[in-house]
Amino acid sequence: MSYFRPEIDAMRGYVPGEQPREGSKVVKMNTNENPYPCSPAVVRAVQTVLERGLQRYPDPMATAFRLRAGEVLGVPADWILCGNGSDEILTMLTRAFVAEGDLLRLPYPSYILYKTLAEIQGARSEEIRFDAQWRLGDDFTAPAPGLKLAFLPNPNSPSGTMIPPAEVLELAKRMPCPLVVDEAYVDFADDNCIRLVKECDKVIVSRTLSKSYALAGLRFGFCVAQPHIIEGLRKIKDSYNCDALSIGASTAAIDDQAWLRENVAQIRVSRARLAAAARSLGFDLVDSQANFVWCTHPSKQLQPIYEHLKRNGILVRYMPYAGWGEGLRISVGTDEQIDVCLALLAEALRK
Amino acid sequence: MSYFRPEIDAMRGYVPGEQPREGSKVVKMNTNENPYPCSPAVVRAVQTVLERGLQRYPDPMATAFRLRAGEVLGVPADWILCGNGSDEILTMLTRAFVAEGDLLRLPYPSYILYKTLAEIQGARSEEIRFDAQWRLGDDFTAPAPGLKLAFLPNPNSPSGTMIPPAEVLELAKRMPCPLVVDEAYVDFADDNCIRLVKECDKVIVSRTLSKSYALAGLRFGFCVAQPHIIEGLRKIKDSYNCDALSIGASTAAIDDQAWLRENVAQIRVSRARLAAAARSLGFDLVDSQANFVWCTHPSKQLQPIYEHLKRNGILVRYMPYAGWGEGLRISVGTDEQIDVCLALLAEALRK
Repeated sequence: MSYFRPEIDAMRGYVPGEQPREGSKVVKMNTNENPYPCSPAVVRAVQTVLERGLQRYPDPMATAFRLRAGEVLGVPADWILCGNGSDEILTMLTRAFVAEGDLLRLPYPSYILYKTLAEIQGARSEEIRFDAQWRLGDDFTAPAPGLKLAFLPNPNSPSGTMIPPAEVLELAKRMPCPLVVDEAYVDFADDNCIRLVKECDKVIVSRTLSKSYALAGLRFGFCVAQPHIIEGLRKIKDSYNCDALSIGASTAAIDDQAWLRENVAQIRVSRARLAAAARSLGFDLVDSQANFVWCTHPSKQLQPIYEHLKRNGILVRYMPYAGWGEGLRISVGTDEQIDVCLALLAEALRK
Repeated sequence: MSYFRPEIDAMRGYVPGEQPREGSKVVKMNTNENPYPCSPAVVRAVQTVLERGLQRYPDPMATAFRLRAGEVLGVPADWILCGNGSDEILTMLTRAFVAEGDLLRLPYPSYILYKTLAEIQGARSEEIRFDAQWRLGDDFTAPAPGLKLAFLPNPNSPSGTMIPPAEVLELAKRMPCPLVVDEAYVDFADDNCIRLVKECDKVIVSRTLSKSYALAGLRFGFCVAQPHIIEGLRKIKDSYNCDALSIGASTAAIDDQAWLRENVAQIRVSRARLAAAARSLGFDLVDSQANFVWCTHPSKQLQPIYEHLKRNGILVRYMPYAGWGEGLRISVGTDEQIDVCLALLAEALRK
């Protein structure tokens, strides 16, 4: 006999991208990590926290980060809630709005974690297909029994495409429930949706420091929403969900906007080069606004190509989407990593 | 109109103990933090992780910690699951076992967070009173409709008392559901319940590094349970719930058992001195197995005493338990802090 809730027994659990063991020589271009080390200011901030000691509980609300992030983003600090990675933000949002039997909506093909979050809640989920231009139509905003939350990754994964903020606002206004705009990759894009939060209290923007700040190892994310939404979410948050080291580090990270601009500029240049070269190899690519490119192919099977790369020390993400098709999602690495990856792709295509 | 689940709108949210702002001169004896800095090995481990960089995701299962902790505790690594503080462990356990409308059982007076966890799930909770000797009778193990989980802090907070492991095993065997033995304070006690996990798969032991390892700022906890329980809990866990710095730090912390023994020995000596002095001032104290003492008084009101201490820079925890009575829970600080606290208690009692 099982002690677990039946929904937990029935589910398989989310499987994140492969993480080779420490010390492995594999080049990771599979989980959209930043290939460069973080700002040196982050390292200094961690040292400062260490000198102060770790024996006391951290600030439950990560106030230092919220004040600085509020200035950078142009929102008041009490419009911000911090989390242990944006994963925890997404978990809190699901727990806040979606009860057993309720419905959670997400686009397809997109970030499959959202389905898992619904499963854990004992809720249903509904996938709405992007159209051929990676936009969403009326079926994404249509009322449905029990619909309590929708997730929209923007830029989307795996496509790297972005729905313009003006269109996102129209979607949100038509929605019968909050719309979480998951902006994990937005620092690599031309625009973002933060300003929409003021216009519509259904818009909740989530962010992470994992990608553009090169801090996947730190686990720090946050969301921006109107204060009455933040107040409700706070009830669900573990009291001390962000640790003292990550609060110090994240505050220093968001304070160093010069580092961010330089890093993002480099990644965007490398992204353009990777995309152009992949197209010239015969892959189909939509323009990416993220730190990865999504490669489909008109004729070749992609799993053998993924495996050829893996055998040769380059890990990319092979993603089959049932009823849609398959693709390779390749994170933008350093130029050297991209060169090795492109050479292996060419080699695999010649086979 | 609210977008939140009705249960979230209805609840007030858990309020943790006061955390004075950084740089404040207040002496904290209110949230059972360790008054001493952590092992120097922890600081070195964080430096090592910093040198390696933070741009990659951490190990999803914190394998390094589990291997070392398994050796220290005498359990296989796959009997251990790590969390972002034991708070996250308690949250995961509640989400795993307790559905909307189900029942969660806890002792009274005890750690009130458990009630909040039930509220967030939309579940009911039931408080069973400790008897006069701080033991639990048949009503704690009696079947009840929807009973899916019970929490037992052992040592208990606020009392600091402990139910002997042999009795805990009897409670667990009679239970119709898992029994979480919350051992947040157990390193300060004479015994612990880890060995019971092998004897009964309903026993789940949770631990934290916040108290005895002086790492409240780090947020790292774990649970020990049979592997089929760990496998189910893993489905609920955020993919990368522990960050790279805390995995390095916690592994170094649990590796330094010499530091732990020395720290615990000091706290226990100070605890005995604090308890004896508080008794001689006229307080009633049961013997504490934790890093705090629970002081009730046969005739004096305690809130004015708490306030006198606070005005003079010493923060202790004033805890009124409805239908039970009130007490002051005083964390064991340094000997100097204890001296100041005792002098202020004496002064307040003379008023």
